[in-house]
Amino acid sequence: MKASLDGSNQSGEKMAAMDELPLVLVHALPPFEISFKGRLQSRFQLIDSLDSTFAPHVSVLLCVGPSPVSSDTLRHLPSLQCIVGSSAGVDHIDLAECRRRGITVTNAGPSFCEDGADFAIGLLIDVLRRISAADRYVRAGLWPMKGDYPLGSKLGGKRVGIVGLGNIGSEIAKRLVAFGCRIAYNSRNKKSSVSFPYYANICNLAANSDILIICCALTKETHHLINKDVMTALGKEGVIINVGRGALINEKELVQCLEQGQIRGAGLDVFENEPDVPKELFELENVVLSPHKAIATPESFASLQELIVGNLEAFFSNKPLLSPVNLE
Amino acid sequence: MKASLDGSNQSGEKMAAMDELPLVLVHALPPFEISFKGRLQSRFQLIDSLDSTFAPHVSVLLCVGPSPVSSDTLRHLPSLQCIVGSSAGVDHIDLAECRRRGITVTNAGPSFCEDGADFAIGLLIDVLRRISAADRYVRAGLWPMKGDYPLGSKLGGKRVGIVGLGNIGSEIAKRLVAFGCRIAYNSRNKKSSVSFPYYANICNLAANSDILIICCALTKETHHLINKDVMTALGKEGVIINVGRGALINEKELVQCLEQGQIRGAGLDVFENEPDVPKELFELENVVLSPHKAIATPESFASLQELIVGNLEAFFSNKPLLSPVNLE
Repeated sequence: MKASLDGSNQSGEKMAAMDELPLVLVHALPPFEISFKGRLQSRFQLIDSLDSTFAPHVSVLLCVGPSPVSSDTLRHLPSLQCIVGSSAGVDHIDLAECRRRGITVTNAGPSFCEDGADFAIGLLIDVLRRISAADRYVRAGLWPMKGDYPLGSKLGGKRVGIVGLGNIGSEIAKRLVAFGCRIAYNSRNKKSSVSFPYYANICNLAANSDILIICCALTKETHHLINKDVMTALGKEGVIINVGRGALINEKELVQCLEQGQIRGAGLDVFENEPDVPKELFELENVVLSPHKAIATPESFASLQELIVGNLEAFFSNKPLLSPVNLE
Repeated sequence: MKASLDGSNQSGEKMAAMDELPLVLVHALPPFEISFKGRLQSRFQLIDSLDSTFAPHVSVLLCVGPSPVSSDTLRHLPSLQCIVGSSAGVDHIDLAECRRRGITVTNAGPSFCEDGADFAIGLLIDVLRRISAADRYVRAGLWPMKGDYPLGSKLGGKRVGIVGLGNIGSEIAKRLVAFGCRIAYNSRNKKSSVSFPYYANICNLAANSDILIICCALTKETHHLINKDVMTALGKEGVIINVGRGALINEKELVQCLEQGQIRGAGLDVFENEPDVPKELFELENVVLSPHKAIATPESFASLQELIVGNLEAFFSNKPLLSPVNLE
């Protein structure tokens, strides 16, 4: 070990400096892991186990991916004040317990909302205009043999009901306005800053929409929010896009409605029992299936690193968090 | 045959009235046909053959689909003043001969531009975010077996070069602004009404773009406009979307560039020898293939009927045509 020019013991100093770094418990259950540990370690003292002797003193937990944070997990952390999340949805965290204990939660919404919105629009155009289905048709060599592929339907002028006008929903609305769509929305509460028509009742929104785009949080209240009644209200020409969570839709009833033509089609990035997808969907021409990747691009992961570091630094310097989740 | 109450011969009157309807020659070579003949016949006297004795007196030709209008066709029509087209592109019409003879030409651009733009955006998101490829992955049951599908790339922030800022190109630009893209364009001339950067040279545009969207007219000057030099300038991360005409791209060089990774991917609605598509493309994961259907939906065909009738009525009442093509 080299001594420094002035003779001090660098290693000892470094250890002392580390001790002064703020404590952060990294909660990453397999297969989730953190890709930028080095960067975090230069600013925070990372702990990776609930059994650490430091755990009772930890005020911040960094939750990687959808690693479950149960009330049991929280019981190990009596000093916890904040959970910094790295996913857009936070249904893997016991939010009721957080609310009870006054623990704040942040999510990754701002990093992922643009990608999520882009993907929702991509799925929507794909379903309406039959892009993936037509791609299969061309690749199978059917164009010269069978002639023109059936036409799809125009996006412009369609009435789009956005279920959940949060980070992603707002970005979806912004894009669809440029396509000439008519927007309405459903959410827990009417938003005073928004001029789009608000429907407190999801069936009423469906009855007045050609398309439903699902991008709300999964909670006890929104579990199976989209059921057969909603799909019946949407009608035979209706299209559903889901970039939220699989369990927002009653998947069994969705499959039935798609098979029986009770709705026109669906673009699904999420499913109730991922990675398992109902096999009945594999044979349908009126669906586009995606393996839960709406929100993710390398660019959004880079943005997420900034957001996580920003939230941690804001917490430790008593500044407003960058992406707090509304727990009310 | 019934006589009317006042004793006049209705049939004779009807024929006399028809004689007074303006003459329109319908030019529809198989397999193209007109779907709203009844509606037209109530306002115009339709002729369907160049050999008709009326042909020398015809001032308007209604060209259905891409039915070729050669200089030989035009020679049969010495009184022709206007060709009302029903397609967005007019490369099937001998425009040089029209220019020489002072024949005006209209196209269907305004009816189809929104659908064309929507489809271009759909293809672009599909290629960037790998929607069709991921749909194949899920349908093949690979998600539970092989795990996460590789990430695509973010649309926001990308530099998009639009080749041809006409009806469709302008609608594409409007949409991409809402996605946070940076737009530039190439066209015959700089447009004074547009603030996007203009590149007179297509290679310069490609070198300064992440994505090229091709939606210009096919002319002698634009044939094979997108060649290997342009693709090399676009670079290994570059994406090409073509909703114009197949022959705007040197297809052989495109296939090579895609196979060898000299560009990243392509979304192609049009091909040089439709309905034949180069078989090499069928095996590639980085392309989305569509059977020339970008501009077509039932809604746009309804809009087209209005446009065609509007152009014919404008011509016969000496009003400005609704969608004249610039022949300069």
